[in-house]
Amino acid sequence: MSSLSSVMDSPVLRSYFTYATIVILKMMLMSPLTSYFRLTRKVFANLEDTKLASPALDKKLVGTDPEVERVRRCHLNDLENIVPFVVVGLLYALTAPDLSAALLHFRIFAGARIFHTVAYVCALPQPSRALGFIVGLTVTFSMAYRVLRTVLLL
Amino acid sequence: MSSLSSVMDSPVLRSYFTYATIVILKMMLMSPLTSYFRLTRKVFANLEDTKLASPALDKKLVGTDPEVERVRRCHLNDLENIVPFVVVGLLYALTAPDLSAALLHFRIFAGARIFHTVAYVCALPQPSRALGFIVGLTVTFSMAYRVLRTVLLL
Amino acid sequence: MSSLSSVMDSPVLRSYFTYATIVILKMMLMSPLTSYFRLTRKVFANLEDTKLASPALDKKLVGTDPEVERVRRCHLNDLENIVPFVVVGLLYALTAPDLSAALLHFRIFAGARIFHTVAYVCALPQPSRALGFIVGLTVTFSMAYRVLRTVLLL
Repeated sequence: MSSLSSVMDSPVLRSYFTYATIVILKMMLMSPLTSYFRLTRKVFANLEDTKLASPALDKKLVGTDPEVERVRRCHLNDLENIVPFVVVGLLYALTAPDLSAALLHFRIFAGARIFHTVAYVCALPQPSRALGFIVGLTVTFSMAYRVLRTVLLL
Repeated sequence: MSSLSSVMDSPVLRSYFTYATIVILKMMLMSPLTSYFRLTRKVFANLEDTKLASPALDKKLVGTDPEVERVRRCHLNDLENIVPFVVVGLLYALTAPDLSAALLHFRIFAGARIFHTVAYVCALPQPSRALGFIVGLTVTFSMAYRVLRTVLLL
Repeated sequence: MSSLSSVMDSPVLRSYFTYATIVILKMMLMSPLTSYFRLTRKVFANLEDTKLASPALDKKLVGTDPEVERVRRCHLNDLENIVPFVVVGLLYALTAPDLSAALLHFRIFAGARIFHTVAYVCALPQPSRALGFIVGLTVTFSMAYRVLRTVLLL
């Protein structure tokens, strides 16, 4: 199981690894983005953080900012959707689906979530963000359906 | 590793796949539930979302609602507990436990978390929700203990 | 795949299992810590929870507390960082890295996140917490880089 060859031999697993890493990286980029907005707008969640943007601790810099909260909601939505994709996707990849079907699932999901992030951070008019969200959810449900149909053991 | 047969040959892995998918699906259902409460109570987190419930953008519809926040807290609690279960559960399933022991862990966890959700969303009197939470946590700790006892390599 | 032997044969997988379980357990300990602060400071998120600290339901006990919110932010930050580590770490461990390189990644990450938690909960002066955060993020990016370089299939 641990050898590289067994992973490299399976195109489905390789594509799963690739897309799982891509969407996880996308999710992780929300952290630096939050930090960027906090530093440029000088709005922090903790008193000790204010020293990063001012010479001394400054209580006035502790608060919330609409833009920061928007990025944080987007990050949380990623956690709520990308983590299930990564988990269900692994189980799905192990049920030996067709490569073309697997790639279709992975690509649509990655595209939908990247679109969702752009729509959220740039506040595009609805239902663009809702669309990205629903498409991502549907892909994960579709993979979960195949997993349950294949291995169900209650 | 990637072939269906190797997964299907192991009842423990099959039951892990089944229950991991079930609890992940349960967690994912919190998203539509949040949307449902947001749309019926007309309380949104983003200005652009208000257009989903009113003919034009309406700042008055941006805010928080106790019922929506309750569902969101339940969702976050799921993330904090179901994701560890899914991760530790996979490692646990790979340590080749007895099927009966594994099923016991998985079934109790799934039951506890479904009960937790009902207790949270319906605001059942405490300590019903605390009970669901603690039982779930205990199952995950029990699996983590077996994983560490079996494979410890620091 | 499911047999214990195949996991036990790979020191890289064993060390991954060990450190993944450790950081997940660390993350899970934030839940009881939150409960502890809520109970000792008598600040709850739900009306029904107030009965855990008072003879009857008491609306005055529903609210937020700086210390509780601090622990919750730390917990959320764990979710945002430890979950990606666990996912990417598994893919990384399956690309058959050198044991010494893998242990280096895992140990630094575990140390950085434990330090991050101490820095957050005890409100150590910055940039101590930022350091723990950035080191952890860098480890995960380094593992993701290796995964993508090894298995890329878009």
